[in-house]
Amino acid sequence: MTQLRIIFLGTSGSWPTVKRSAPSVAIKRRGEVILFDCGEGTQRQLQKSKLSYMQISKIFITHFHGDHFLGIPGLVQTMQLNDREIPLHIFGPKGMNKLVNQLLSLGYFAPNYDIISHELDEGTILDFNDYLINVIRVKHGVPTIAYSLEEKMRPGKFNKPKALKLGIPEGPLFSKLQKGETVILKNGKKIKPSMVLGPSRKGRKIVISGDTKAIDKMIGFAKNADVLIHEATFDSTFEDLSSDYGHSTSKQAARIAKEAKVDKLLLTHISPRYLDSNVIQKEAREVFKNSFAVKDFQEVEVKLKD
Amino acid sequence: MTQLRIIFLGTSGSWPTVKRSAPSVAIKRRGEVILFDCGEGTQRQLQKSKLSYMQISKIFITHFHGDHFLGIPGLVQTMQLNDREIPLHIFGPKGMNKLVNQLLSLGYFAPNYDIISHELDEGTILDFNDYLINVIRVKHGVPTIAYSLEEKMRPGKFNKPKALKLGIPEGPLFSKLQKGETVILKNGKKIKPSMVLGPSRKGRKIVISGDTKAIDKMIGFAKNADVLIHEATFDSTFEDLSSDYGHSTSKQAARIAKEAKVDKLLLTHISPRYLDSNVIQKEAREVFKNSFAVKDFQEVEVKLKD
Repeated sequence: MTQLRIIFLGTSGSWPTVKRSAPSVAIKRRGEVILFDCGEGTQRQLQKSKLSYMQISKIFITHFHGDHFLGIPGLVQTMQLNDREIPLHIFGPKGMNKLVNQLLSLGYFAPNYDIISHELDEGTILDFNDYLINVIRVKHGVPTIAYSLEEKMRPGKFNKPKALKLGIPEGPLFSKLQKGETVILKNGKKIKPSMVLGPSRKGRKIVISGDTKAIDKMIGFAKNADVLIHEATFDSTFEDLSSDYGHSTSKQAARIAKEAKVDKLLLTHISPRYLDSNVIQKEAREVFKNSFAVKDFQEVEVKLKD
Repeated sequence: MTQLRIIFLGTSGSWPTVKRSAPSVAIKRRGEVILFDCGEGTQRQLQKSKLSYMQISKIFITHFHGDHFLGIPGLVQTMQLNDREIPLHIFGPKGMNKLVNQLLSLGYFAPNYDIISHELDEGTILDFNDYLINVIRVKHGVPTIAYSLEEKMRPGKFNKPKALKLGIPEGPLFSKLQKGETVILKNGKKIKPSMVLGPSRKGRKIVISGDTKAIDKMIGFAKNADVLIHEATFDSTFEDLSSDYGHSTSKQAARIAKEAKVDKLLLTHISPRYLDSNVIQKEAREVFKNSFAVKDFQEVEVKLKD
């Protein structure tokens, strides 16, 4: 079964604090590490985590405030000093190509592996074989996008008793059928996967809000997600300030989680004013029970449902 | 007495490790904080130290390899988010103006306080009232400069018995004389500072090598320094590699310290290959006893000599 783990590398908003690094969250899946945002210090957070920065294949940036992207040049340079050869893809809203060019031409650095930038906009769907990345625009002071990572449908459950009844010998034919291939038995009988598999099952869905005011559009985007990672810069006592700055309160994020019927809400991008994020978590739980204000290096495994 | 403290914010070379952040060393003197180099993560190291990043008045960069300057944009932006109004001066070798311009135009940031860049070269002497900054070129793969901070001569020791004998009343006139001002007593007698002060005394001298091969020129530049902060990326077993990469071994740095007759040698820019810097310190001490491989957050107070 494919493991999918979310690892929070930085959970602060605006600037790093003693306890929290600038924003970055990693998804590890099938030996691939995908970063969402890459604030200053991300390469060192990676060193301190169990992840290998050499496994990073893609970086998705939500917007171009420094705390969300200033970790890119250092990470890219350290990869080079450690002999990276495989390409690195960096995705973000309009302006990403220019910004990547700028970040790669600071000082005496010149990349000797491929770093490829991509500009995305609302409605973009990126197809990476077994998962999709979807994009919507959200509401922050500057152009900002939210992402969802959705695994494609998985084959249905394998009905072993039925397979044995059909005369299929236990072994390699089983796994072929499980992968969706038609097989032919020694007696010439043709077995289609649909004959031994239940209905197709959903993959996992993870949504990353980026920095944004709480918007209703997020409810549809996060519909039935396994995990919604939503910013919660403030608690409700700062609701006006939060809105002025293009941010969400934890209560607002919780309402979205509840209406979207997600399984779990992970709250991040906590303002440096909070020495203790309990207030953030507590008020979210009043609206949506399965809410968690996350900490740096916190890991969340997202299991497949049966 | 003016305190002068050296605080190491990052002591790694090339890239940060779990224990060491990218290069940066602060000098705190008279409420002013001066940074030499500002690698990625410096703003967070400042948060973790007892220093206030708002007190930083000047940043001196030795060269434009990413590990030495990528902390600038984040620091500058965080200062802005915390309502900095006073100017910030950034000094470095030729190319500093262009680089500062690049660093200030990343993403949606635009500075609303003055950030002034300055390009320096061998022979530059900057006069900051009570101390000087001197500059020489050193030998690294790219243009690199070393810095010395030298306090100006201090007035000689105040001879209190002599002052009383001359009829000067204890009080404000004493401090005027100590500051070098001539005073006139009630009886019309004119007292010059030289009448009550001993010979002028030397201030302190701190030298920062930047990244460099060991060069004889450094001996003259660091002559009689109170503290020489020298890079020691490798130990002697990597002498050839070290030279190829434009770096020094700790033994080479120690020889310079010895010949320059400095009081204390502080070794930094330790390669990530060393989990333990004892080997660096040990081989330096074989040549120059007062050698120390420093750690992040280590503080060294430099006292005035009498």
